[in-house]
Amino acid sequence: MMQTPLVLTDFFNRAETYYANKEIISRTSETKIHRLTYGEWAKRTRKLAHALTKLGMTRGMKVGSFAWNQHRHLEAYFAVPCSGAVLHMVNIRLSEDDLRYIINHAEDEILIIDADLVPIIENIAADLTTVKHYIIMTDEDEVKTTLPNAYSYEQLLQEADETFSFPHDLEENEPAGMCYTSATTGKPKGVVYTHRGLVLHSMMLSMVDSMGIREADRTMPIVPMFHVNAWGIPFASVNVGASQVLVGPNFTPDIILDMIESEKVTLTAGVPTIWLGALQSLEEKPRDISSLRVICCGGSASPPHLIRAFEEKYQVPYISVYGMTETTPIVALSNYQSWMNEWAMDEKVAVRTTQGMTMPCITSSIINENGEVPWDGETMGELRLRGPWISHEYYKDERTADAYRDGWLYTGDIAVRTKDGLIKITDRTKDLIKSGGEWISSVDLENALMSHPAIFEAAVIAVPHAKWQERPLACVVLKEGETATKEELYHILEPLFAKWWLPDDIVFLDEIPKTSVGKFLKAKLRDNVAQFYPQI
Amino acid sequence: MMQTPLVLTDFFNRAETYYANKEIISRTSETKIHRLTYGEWAKRTRKLAHALTKLGMTRGMKVGSFAWNQHRHLEAYFAVPCSGAVLHMVNIRLSEDDLRYIINHAEDEILIIDADLVPIIENIAADLTTVKHYIIMTDEDEVKTTLPNAYSYEQLLQEADETFSFPHDLEENEPAGMCYTSATTGKPKGVVYTHRGLVLHSMMLSMVDSMGIREADRTMPIVPMFHVNAWGIPFASVNVGASQVLVGPNFTPDIILDMIESEKVTLTAGVPTIWLGALQSLEEKPRDISSLRVICCGGSASPPHLIRAFEEKYQVPYISVYGMTETTPIVALSNYQSWMNEWAMDEKVAVRTTQGMTMPCITSSIINENGEVPWDGETMGELRLRGPWISHEYYKDERTADAYRDGWLYTGDIAVRTKDGLIKITDRTKDLIKSGGEWISSVDLENALMSHPAIFEAAVIAVPHAKWQERPLACVVLKEGETATKEELYHILEPLFAKWWLPDDIVFLDEIPKTSVGKFLKAKLRDNVAQFYPQI
Repeated sequence: MMQTPLVLTDFFNRAETYYANKEIISRTSETKIHRLTYGEWAKRTRKLAHALTKLGMTRGMKVGSFAWNQHRHLEAYFAVPCSGAVLHMVNIRLSEDDLRYIINHAEDEILIIDADLVPIIENIAADLTTVKHYIIMTDEDEVKTTLPNAYSYEQLLQEADETFSFPHDLEENEPAGMCYTSATTGKPKGVVYTHRGLVLHSMMLSMVDSMGIREADRTMPIVPMFHVNAWGIPFASVNVGASQVLVGPNFTPDIILDMIESEKVTLTAGVPTIWLGALQSLEEKPRDISSLRVICCGGSASPPHLIRAFEEKYQVPYISVYGMTETTPIVALSNYQSWMNEWAMDEKVAVRTTQGMTMPCITSSIINENGEVPWDGETMGELRLRGPWISHEYYKDERTADAYRDGWLYTGDIAVRTKDGLIKITDRTKDLIKSGGEWISSVDLENALMSHPAIFEAAVIAVPHAKWQERPLACVVLKEGETATKEELYHILEPLFAKWWLPDDIVFLDEIPKTSVGKFLKAKLRDNVAQFYPQI
Repeated sequence: MMQTPLVLTDFFNRAETYYANKEIISRTSETKIHRLTYGEWAKRTRKLAHALTKLGMTRGMKVGSFAWNQHRHLEAYFAVPCSGAVLHMVNIRLSEDDLRYIINHAEDEILIIDADLVPIIENIAADLTTVKHYIIMTDEDEVKTTLPNAYSYEQLLQEADETFSFPHDLEENEPAGMCYTSATTGKPKGVVYTHRGLVLHSMMLSMVDSMGIREADRTMPIVPMFHVNAWGIPFASVNVGASQVLVGPNFTPDIILDMIESEKVTLTAGVPTIWLGALQSLEEKPRDISSLRVICCGGSASPPHLIRAFEEKYQVPYISVYGMTETTPIVALSNYQSWMNEWAMDEKVAVRTTQGMTMPCITSSIINENGEVPWDGETMGELRLRGPWISHEYYKDERTADAYRDGWLYTGDIAVRTKDGLIKITDRTKDLIKSGGEWISSVDLENALMSHPAIFEAAVIAVPHAKWQERPLACVVLKEGETATKEELYHILEPLFAKWWLPDDIVFLDEIPKTSVGKFLKAKLRDNVAQFYPQI
């Protein structure tokens, strides 16, 4: 066979060649929606690559992006890696400390910044040791900023060549992108994506039994392009020529629903919090979301009532997807298998609450001290993964040795395997509750609590206990204007769980602390709770 | 990223792990249908690998198969390559001369033969210089044959270990399979498939905008497993856990339709002759083929009336696929793109008569003396291809230099590019008609002739001409019991083509000579016609 490398340039060429008339819809501010074709986008992408090259971009150089989901970010998504450089997608929600650390650690030499995010970078610019040029994504030709060596993105493009050629000698194992993932202790950890990994991941996202991304789609990832490649959806969409809807800054459930309706979005993807908000908004103000063929949800577990509402009431398949920064990210999806066709709705919803079946080319293993866990839906173990889009290290980081062992990535997720081989995450290793030597799944308890109509969010954490080492404590947040009592909540839990699983107490909070990407920060929650609840 | 190789063993493991209860339906003789699960198949495949290893199979060794589409052949499809050996799928329809040549040229050391095909091999066994063992695929424990060192397949399996382990150190560029393709002049030419090529090809076949092979499918390739991997469908089906229906020996249109109906086949694939026959049978004896979600047709062009009949009357999408032995084989498919949704049926059928759009990761180019042809649907050039499942050579064959040049495979197919970028083959370079310096497409003329209801097949060939160098001559075969006149046929052609495109004559034949895989043998037809029609 020809040694043709798997590189993103093939995706770019394909969109430019065959899909020049397909559309990119980009919400660039609260009030503005910009539309361009793939043909226009391709020219602009070549111009951006030329402009970056003139600024000194070279093979292997790190170029940071600090931006929302919008068309210029999608230009950088291809201009940088197709030139042989590495796009470092910087998470805009990190603390200034973390931002300083990751930009310096990655050694970003150029930083491309969304106009409204410039103040954040201005605050830390004095400490950025490697950045030589700042490019501001704005409609204006002139930029006003305290940043040194700052350019207007559009001005640079005006002076660049739309026929600029990408190098023809890229190799598939060259780095193409990188992201940092927050760590429980210490600074964020960097993960580098190769062309090969991103290409294989994208192809897999277009398989029927996956997200099935196709030419006829109008994809709208809510998951940010600064967070693990927006789950790979922009790359896959370019490859198959799907139109893309980019949701822009400061979106709300209302904005998301309005865009689904007006842009006839077919596929969307985000964390459960997004869909909980969207469902509430949809109930208050109905929209036509019938264009949707699938909602993909990941990041944390979806409560069954949420799944059921979308699948039954709105007739939109709602699939859980699973992955992490270390895995490009998607490695498993909860699609229904053909033998589930006739299952009752409860059983089907139970499938959707799992993380699903591992994708082709990915090997999953769930092990505990007795080896691989049986397919009983009960025995817990740590999930580990292997495959061609799983990273093999943290970038220049000694913590590599903790997570990457014996050819596996140890995910730190505790999971069971259902009778159909589906993976169901029950906890993070670090969030696990171990009571009297037995494991208790916080996720199962949380899902049960969230079935109460008044509960907006629930997090179950371990608190130290003299006799049992640890005991579960439930923290719940009520929906605005709703009420619920402890007794009602225990009433829900009692028939579902063994007595020793029941939380020792249930506390009502105003909010649950979250990471920059919307996941529960249980370590922080434990600290908070410890302050006012030390007696357990 | 982890350097996890793309190997068929992952497909095998996936089917064994997740799809153990899915079904393989195997028609092993005129009267017998055998059913087994993927779980049973996986155990038998491990046993076969063990048995072959005991017989001396080693890494890189060529093991020939000489068999119909049936479950044992599917066992060999994985037992051999997952062991690191190479499955040479020998085309059972070749002449004895060609069979001798290719088995010796490939240096097959073990030959696995379907019971009813044993006499063919017995006839040539004395001349096979490398084969050490013959394995007969039969239900019997004992085999009766003049072949030396012959074993019963089932007897070998009984003595083998179902827990046999495949090697863990396969590399993705190791050879996994090989096929020979007939050449216009000289002996057949060998093509070697690597694990990487077959894995990428299979993943692509599961993409939505391709064949979309999925877990819920029941796939039934009519294209033989001894011909270019049955278009890759068995490999892709194992990967996604689709149930497989294997059509067995000596099938007819009636058998095919009966199996589609009884086994609820969802995807089937074969050459136009098959679907012409099936359509005729269907008209005579209706069956329920509503389980079909797609018919894939390739090998040669489908006449529009055939496409229209399946799409309009039977509501089954009928997509043309394109490829060749050198390309694993599929590189393009004629799926409708979203912008064609509202097109009139005539325009849609015209799309299906093209070979369609190049798949992701494959680059196509159509060039003539002026460079890349415009997207005008008229300007012809030679199609060339590049990509990770395109071969880079003929196996130990000097003819490599003719076809593989400048990093491209020159296909020998003459094509145009439509306004949507679709490839439409108009001829083989060797079948091209060049009249007065201008090219005439035999395929276009053939399709027009076949729109006459009485015409079963039509082939247009070049015959020498004193003034114009070459002129087209049409050869047609009538359907049984039907009649048509030259005048009627010219009447069809005249409004469609320039006057100088019209054939100088139309001759009625009993049959058109075909290759072992059902393609027109135009070189032979030209010889035949020259005998009785030398005056043109």
